[in-house]
Amino acid sequence: MTTKTHTDRYEIRLAGEGGQGMILAGIILAEAAAIYDGKNACQTQVYGPEARGGASKAEVVIAQGEIDHPEVITADALVAMSQEACDKYGSNLKKDGFLIVDEEKVGRVPSSRAIKVPITRLAQESSGKAITANVVALGVLVGLTDVVSRAAIEKAVSARAPKGTEAMNKAALEAGFTAADLISKKDE
Amino acid sequence: MTTKTHTDRYEIRLAGEGGQGMILAGIILAEAAAIYDGKNACQTQVYGPEARGGASKAEVVIAQGEIDHPEVITADALVAMSQEACDKYGSNLKKDGFLIVDEEKVGRVPSSRAIKVPITRLAQESSGKAITANVVALGVLVGLTDVVSRAAIEKAVSARAPKGTEAMNKAALEAGFTAADLISKKDE
Repeated sequence: MTTKTHTDRYEIRLAGEGGQGMILAGIILAEAAAIYDGKNACQTQVYGPEARGGASKAEVVIAQGEIDHPEVITADALVAMSQEACDKYGSNLKKDGFLIVDEEKVGRVPSSRAIKVPITRLAQESSGKAITANVVALGVLVGLTDVVSRAAIEKAVSARAPKGTEAMNKAALEAGFTAADLISKKDE
Repeated sequence: MTTKTHTDRYEIRLAGEGGQGMILAGIILAEAAAIYDGKNACQTQVYGPEARGGASKAEVVIAQGEIDHPEVITADALVAMSQEACDKYGSNLKKDGFLIVDEEKVGRVPSSRAIKVPITRLAQESSGKAITANVVALGVLVGLTDVVSRAAIEKAVSARAPKGTEAMNKAALEAGFTAADLISKKDE
């Protein structure tokens, strides 16, 4: 697998359960793109009846130019942190899209191209807190796709980290980058 | 001024400076509508070059039915927490729309119908922390517009409050409700 450089519209879904911080992850990714990489970004949550079931989904669209339509049409990348999220959105992915799943939470994947990463376990191991799984997921996503620069996502994570948790969140992000590097190497 | 009950699409902009928590306020409002009031809601941030200047804006669309277009077209309500936000979005408001401004931050308003509330001061007085201004703003907005129920916004604020800050955020929300009640009375 080779990384890609995006000059055009790039659509990302981050999906999981309430409490996994996927909405915050979406905000951080959009801020990385817009504030630190100088691109345009839209970040949307659409809530419907499913919000009451505890599902949580953020969408981010990043582009060099103007963004006409703020929602994902067909995703370039999906991060699925629950089986429900993978079942629901796993098929709405471009042919060469990235499907990244937390392998301890998602047993069934719709494609052999799915990239299985123990995201929540890496969060626990790197930062001591499973709650940083959303930041590990951002590290894996950015490490594999280059949709924003690593420097930009580092700054965006740091700016949104609650006081006193900066080091923990940095460690989680690095763990995500390292996992992405290992996956990229394996594929060369 | 009488409060309104909305059965149809209702569009809200929350705008201010980075760090005032307007994006989080948008998420809380959307969650109040979708999770606790059983409506549909979309919450969007659109970032462009202005994000680098420190401006921050969240848009929330709430409806009983499906939401086709997730962004605000012409706002039913604007909360402006900075002069820049008021200047930029103050004119994009429906005729009977609500323009709510933090009166200590916004000196010039585009309409005599603007509702001036010392939002940040109320935050400081009620909770001891100016950082709860976003929650006071939600209290004022919901108290005046009834776009979601008071019970729903209470639950949504509580669910998003960091551990240990629940009481502080509840106090801020109550201060917003009280301000709205005073304003409504004055107009009767």
